[in-house]
Amino acid sequence: MKRRILVTRGAAAAAATTALAAPAIAQSAPEIRWRLSSAFPRTFDTLFGPAELIARQVAAITDNRFQIRVFPAGEIVPPFSTLEAAQNGTVEMTHVPNYYFIGKEPALAFETALPWGMTFRQHNAWYYHGGGQALLRELMREYNVISFLAGNTGAQMGGFFRKELRTVADLQGLKFRIAGLGGQIMARLGATPQQLALGEVYSALERGTIDAAEFVGPYDDERIGLVRVAPFYYYPGFWEGGAALSLNIHLPAWESLPASYKAAIETACAMANADMMAKYDAVNAAALRRLVAQGAQLRAFPREILAEAWKAAHAIYDELARTNAKFARIYESWKVFRDEQFLWFRVAELTYQNFAFTAAQTVR
Amino acid sequence: MKRRILVTRGAAAAAATTALAAPAIAQSAPEIRWRLSSAFPRTFDTLFGPAELIARQVAAITDNRFQIRVFPAGEIVPPFSTLEAAQNGTVEMTHVPNYYFIGKEPALAFETALPWGMTFRQHNAWYYHGGGQALLRELMREYNVISFLAGNTGAQMGGFFRKELRTVADLQGLKFRIAGLGGQIMARLGATPQQLALGEVYSALERGTIDAAEFVGPYDDERIGLVRVAPFYYYPGFWEGGAALSLNIHLPAWESLPASYKAAIETACAMANADMMAKYDAVNAAALRRLVAQGAQLRAFPREILAEAWKAAHAIYDELARTNAKFARIYESWKVFRDEQFLWFRVAELTYQNFAFTAAQTVR
Repeated sequence: MKRRILVTRGAAAAAATTALAAPAIAQSAPEIRWRLSSAFPRTFDTLFGPAELIARQVAAITDNRFQIRVFPAGEIVPPFSTLEAAQNGTVEMTHVPNYYFIGKEPALAFETALPWGMTFRQHNAWYYHGGGQALLRELMREYNVISFLAGNTGAQMGGFFRKELRTVADLQGLKFRIAGLGGQIMARLGATPQQLALGEVYSALERGTIDAAEFVGPYDDERIGLVRVAPFYYYPGFWEGGAALSLNIHLPAWESLPASYKAAIETACAMANADMMAKYDAVNAAALRRLVAQGAQLRAFPREILAEAWKAAHAIYDELARTNAKFARIYESWKVFRDEQFLWFRVAELTYQNFAFTAAQTVR
Repeated sequence: MKRRILVTRGAAAAAATTALAAPAIAQSAPEIRWRLSSAFPRTFDTLFGPAELIARQVAAITDNRFQIRVFPAGEIVPPFSTLEAAQNGTVEMTHVPNYYFIGKEPALAFETALPWGMTFRQHNAWYYHGGGQALLRELMREYNVISFLAGNTGAQMGGFFRKELRTVADLQGLKFRIAGLGGQIMARLGATPQQLALGEVYSALERGTIDAAEFVGPYDDERIGLVRVAPFYYYPGFWEGGAALSLNIHLPAWESLPASYKAAIETACAMANADMMAKYDAVNAAALRRLVAQGAQLRAFPREILAEAWKAAHAIYDELARTNAKFARIYESWKVFRDEQFLWFRVAELTYQNFAFTAAQTVR
């Protein structure tokens, strides 16, 4: 009898232990399935890839308890509805350059890139160690979203042109497929920015309906084949000296996560941010070589065009800062930080690069 | 009686369930405590910081089940014994630039930096997407270690000099505190490399026992105060165009980890690798400004010195490749990749930087 009671108590104790332990584990490592809408099709693997990397790392870290399924552009929501989708919780996550949404709010450009903005490294420095993240998160909160840096293209190319450019006058009336703030600058320089879906660019350029088109850099540009219809391949794409992608998360979904899953996402995004840049650098080098073999004629934009574009960009920023308090608030932090970064990078980094990158050709 | 049996069986079943469940959880998320020896003192927070960041993220991701305690240089093992410590399992992890150990094996320089090597971005591209990681892991396996990229300094400064340099002749007999392959190059250019502990540099430079000393970049250099005794602050530190830190893990310890903890470490290292660079960029800009205010006179190395250093570096690499198969195997991959990266970066990236970084001063 005594033994029976002991056993019974043992059973109750074991049951109690199990009951206490199980919810604790369930709370700290629940099984979760989320959906992520990318703004890119699967075929552009450098742009689509970071979302897959984030999903893969988060699953591996959590023993597959937290699974994120990645959908390419258009399968759940079209690319230009991805901010709204994260805002409303249609999906828990979206992966997109948030400057797609500067029509809603010009300050969203700071999430991605402004013409003559910071490079990949400098943007990261501002974001992680210069106050940028806090400012951008405050902005994104208005869209019921928390965002993470999650990828970068590096300095882009300026696009394919049917004719050579010598002066700013050559831009007059030039029909250039370019969007956003870059398009606004080009308009001030006399060009006519065109909005065309990517699938229409090749034939428009071939027929001469447009005179030039920009996309990203050698690896992506090669796939569209524009070199066959517009051989002059200009650089740099000064409107995107380093374009960042954001991972946007529906804020209530984020807040429902246990702390360990939040840390997993944060860490995986940092990895994806760096990995995308590394992959682009690796693949762009070879793609540029192939493009040149296919007939691309590399041309730097004339200095006059760069200088006028610099002035036009800052005139636009000053106008925006005067009329838009949100833009002004972030611009102040961003510009002070950028200008100091530009000065510092001229010293060790740029001197190193200017010598080293040409030394194999110039040192005898 | 029947009830008693049921209860007893129930107890046994509950115990069995607990016994089955607990090991499953224990296996997938065991409580682990590891020790990490950094090669740096806590005071150099940019160098010491990545190890702490890795420990913090791994703890957060695993709900504190996997805890890594970080020890500064010398508390468990001295900096130059950290590879041996990871090899023998004295500690599970060390954080160190593996070129500290080129005396054992010159090929270990590829883990960190070679003079005129790749920049931060290019090294990452080679490591993550150009075959570098596999080659380096094969090398590190000989030391019973698996290593991860875990931090970078970016292009360093060339150090503080008591006198100005005009030609290669000014290097004759110059006593320069510089180690490793950079020191070997300086020796070929006529200088006399000096090995001095960091704590002895200031007084040696003040007394004129040495003529020059290099360390890292503005933020770290400022702390040593060398500007007060050697005002000419040269750039770039061409022997470290981007010096990477490695996280070395004792291989049997690594192999004992569950897959989820391995993924946590891999992801946290990628984050730390990027974060260290971002922090350096943020703090170096302001530190350089302060150094100039303290009297630092910025000087670029004369082109003749850079050109002779380029030649000397590649002569050394060719000699090493002829006599050392391990060096030759990695050098072949590294050099092809580097040369292609250098060509690509001259196009969009360098043209962007050369214009943008000076535009605030030059565009009117």
